[in-house]
Amino acid sequence: MMNAAPAGDASLEPPLGAFGLTHRLAAEALGAALLLAIVVGSGIMGERLAAGNNAIALLGNSLATGAGLVVLITIFGPISGAHFNPAVTLAFAIRREIAWPRAAAYAVVQAVAGIVGVWVAHAMFSEPIFQVSTKLRDGPSQALAEFVATFGLIGSIFGSLRFRPDATAWIVGLYITAAYWFTASTSFANPAVTIARSLSNTFAGIAPSSTPAFIAAQLVGAIAAAVAFGWLLNESPKRTFGRTA
Amino acid sequence: MMNAAPAGDASLEPPLGAFGLTHRLAAEALGAALLLAIVVGSGIMGERLAAGNNAIALLGNSLATGAGLVVLITIFGPISGAHFNPAVTLAFAIRREIAWPRAAAYAVVQAVAGIVGVWVAHAMFSEPIFQVSTKLRDGPSQALAEFVATFGLIGSIFGSLRFRPDATAWIVGLYITAAYWFTASTSFANPAVTIARSLSNTFAGIAPSSTPAFIAAQLVGAIAAAVAFGWLLNESPKRTFGRTA
Amino acid sequence: MMNAAPAGDASLEPPLGAFGLTHRLAAEALGAALLLAIVVGSGIMGERLAAGNNAIALLGNSLATGAGLVVLITIFGPISGAHFNPAVTLAFAIRREIAWPRAAAYAVVQAVAGIVGVWVAHAMFSEPIFQVSTKLRDGPSQALAEFVATFGLIGSIFGSLRFRPDATAWIVGLYITAAYWFTASTSFANPAVTIARSLSNTFAGIAPSSTPAFIAAQLVGAIAAAVAFGWLLNESPKRTFGRTA
Amino acid sequence: MMNAAPAGDASLEPPLGAFGLTHRLAAEALGAALLLAIVVGSGIMGERLAAGNNAIALLGNSLATGAGLVVLITIFGPISGAHFNPAVTLAFAIRREIAWPRAAAYAVVQAVAGIVGVWVAHAMFSEPIFQVSTKLRDGPSQALAEFVATFGLIGSIFGSLRFRPDATAWIVGLYITAAYWFTASTSFANPAVTIARSLSNTFAGIAPSSTPAFIAAQLVGAIAAAVAFGWLLNESPKRTFGRTA
Repeated sequence: MMNAAPAGDASLEPPLGAFGLTHRLAAEALGAALLLAIVVGSGIMGERLAAGNNAIALLGNSLATGAGLVVLITIFGPISGAHFNPAVTLAFAIRREIAWPRAAAYAVVQAVAGIVGVWVAHAMFSEPIFQVSTKLRDGPSQALAEFVATFGLIGSIFGSLRFRPDATAWIVGLYITAAYWFTASTSFANPAVTIARSLSNTFAGIAPSSTPAFIAAQLVGAIAAAVAFGWLLNESPKRTFGRTA
Repeated sequence: MMNAAPAGDASLEPPLGAFGLTHRLAAEALGAALLLAIVVGSGIMGERLAAGNNAIALLGNSLATGAGLVVLITIFGPISGAHFNPAVTLAFAIRREIAWPRAAAYAVVQAVAGIVGVWVAHAMFSEPIFQVSTKLRDGPSQALAEFVATFGLIGSIFGSLRFRPDATAWIVGLYITAAYWFTASTSFANPAVTIARSLSNTFAGIAPSSTPAFIAAQLVGAIAAAVAFGWLLNESPKRTFGRTA
Repeated sequence: MMNAAPAGDASLEPPLGAFGLTHRLAAEALGAALLLAIVVGSGIMGERLAAGNNAIALLGNSLATGAGLVVLITIFGPISGAHFNPAVTLAFAIRREIAWPRAAAYAVVQAVAGIVGVWVAHAMFSEPIFQVSTKLRDGPSQALAEFVATFGLIGSIFGSLRFRPDATAWIVGLYITAAYWFTASTSFANPAVTIARSLSNTFAGIAPSSTPAFIAAQLVGAIAAAVAFGWLLNESPKRTFGRTA
Repeated sequence: MMNAAPAGDASLEPPLGAFGLTHRLAAEALGAALLLAIVVGSGIMGERLAAGNNAIALLGNSLATGAGLVVLITIFGPISGAHFNPAVTLAFAIRREIAWPRAAAYAVVQAVAGIVGVWVAHAMFSEPIFQVSTKLRDGPSQALAEFVATFGLIGSIFGSLRFRPDATAWIVGLYITAAYWFTASTSFANPAVTIARSLSNTFAGIAPSSTPAFIAAQLVGAIAAAVAFGWLLNESPKRTFGRTA
């Protein structure tokens, strides 16, 4: 159930169909699981085939993830909003477009389903199912990269929902494809993805000890974007022409 | 001739133009032949040029296949539905959107035309026309990969037909581009493609002895997706707002 | 001036704006010159940077050409139809959608402007302006590849104009990206492009002695597609529902 | 505030929402900063991972920049026009679609914000923040390449705004992806980008001594395009059918 958006403010979330909570959580679960299967699976494929050239592996990884996101957001968006990402759910909760209890349920489902998706990828590639990553991704530069990545992701979502809601799936897929390349952390930008990737000691993995700083940077980036784009995307009061939520 | 969809259920297939059976089968034949020429031809090109780096070959192969699918579904979809794939036809038959006799005719045409497409690719690349693949793709991991690949393909088709029918060609092309990378089997996801590729001993080939498990996994994946997405894409009864098939 | 399409037949060409012949020929000239600058320039860039791996060079070449075609067809299509290709102009002339004298003017402009585009590419890359290619592309396989490439190109154009005219630019760009990979000849599919590329001894070149077979195969492919898709894209008489040209 | 377009001439700029100057300048600043972070960041990522194969680095760099531009133009276009580029602002000023004082403010903001974006990229990749490039990009061929790149960019913008304003973000992103490959200079096509990239001694850098010729060529290309496309995109007087600005 969506709360009303703040008075005088345009809703950024397109109206959802009449799907109940079970359908919504199922869509978040299936979407998050498939997203992680795509992220981790294409990373394994790239690493196995690229003969040590990580730029080629990243090309396959980034194109597969971006293309997959366009698909998943298109087919699950009208059911659940296609967040797949606690940072996105947080940003919508801040804007009062999803109630806090429902937001919490979303986040739990996203995290659990993401882990299942990693295990599916491992099974497909004959990897041991249960792994823990040893790939350290530490330091302030990595945290800054995650802040920028998540700030840009939330801005892309809010901006396209505001001006071109029909293109949101495309904008998010293109953004992540670009962000895999322009952020030094290859743009996790998603706490559920971060947790799940800590359980894969492959191309896409991240050591558990590196995850807290990633998640903190992501949440700060999401809050900063919710504030900044909340202001930027609103016409100035003098010139409003009758839009209401 | 399309049967009525089950009562209370939304049709997933967009209305087709007034094309008769001859036109429809011709569209399936031309589309399947071109699809296989694209899959096998771009595989040969990639393998010949990539100097042994299979990730680079897969980049060319996956981009060409995805781009080609967008084209083929756009130009043949309004004539025949642009299945090119017995697993897709099966899923529509399960949902009673295509009669079983017509579905059988579709599947035969898809398989035969796919083989012709492989031969065209061989001729273009000065390869022997008649080949049999020796590339084993065996084991439960490969079968799981084909299950996932086909489940996701049918879900992508049903989801985009339900919410964004104008984008179906794009969604399928993007899905296959991603699936070439994130499934360990490089996502055949199509029994006609599987049979045809067994007749090419090149990059895209599959040994005939590996095909039964692939095809079985594809059909199970298609049935599972027809059931799962049949439930997921339907609003819950309490909140239906008058949509009828 | 467009002739009326044959009675009982749908026009495949979208209505053009009120642009006169001077504007149209200028659009064909600018578009063909830019197309060849893109094809030859991105080939030189790829070859110079790819350290001998021609698959990587072809990735850059095919992505640049496909992306460039979407742009050129979008911005010049409403002025001249954005043929840039005597084989395309021939197919429209066969369908009586462009008068033969105008078609001849189009073809001359396309060929001359294409050559200028090659020279611009050479100048940008500090290559000698005037070159003749020594790259032989001979044999029946290459001719078959050009037949298939052009047949598919014309089918893609006619199919998208028939069903999704707003997407024609995208469909052509995606088709050519795929065709660079799945045809053994890397899909010239255009007599003006073939002539112009014979004047560049770089990645995209073709020896003049190889051009007649290419051009012949392209024209036969265009005629075959005009006939085949002319039939396929027309509803069968029994079920026509009042469409007129 | 937009001036009226010249009498008898169609406006090329879509109507903007009711955003005030502060919002507009903030959108130009955020967009230009993110654009430079994308250009420079993806260049660093490509160079670090590509093991010396610059074609692979350019693939990542060009795909990230093109995808990023689609995103940035979609989310900032309705606020400020999403110029991010003094050459684009100049072209609109020549067509009297933006007043000269506002154009000057745009250009200053673009240049300053672009430099900040470069510094953000350096910080994310643990590079020294303050750098000066030593990469010479000199000679008449490079200047010609920048003239062509900017001429084509302005033509792409004007053409898509004229015929398909909803697709402008896509057309610009695709154009730049192609232009990275087909112009010998990898298509800076933007004075603010040129200045900012002179402050990065990485893949995307340019020595300060090479910048004046780049910027001059860009401005000449923009003016030439404003004149040429101003004529080409206007229907001939005889056949105008009542369009007014």
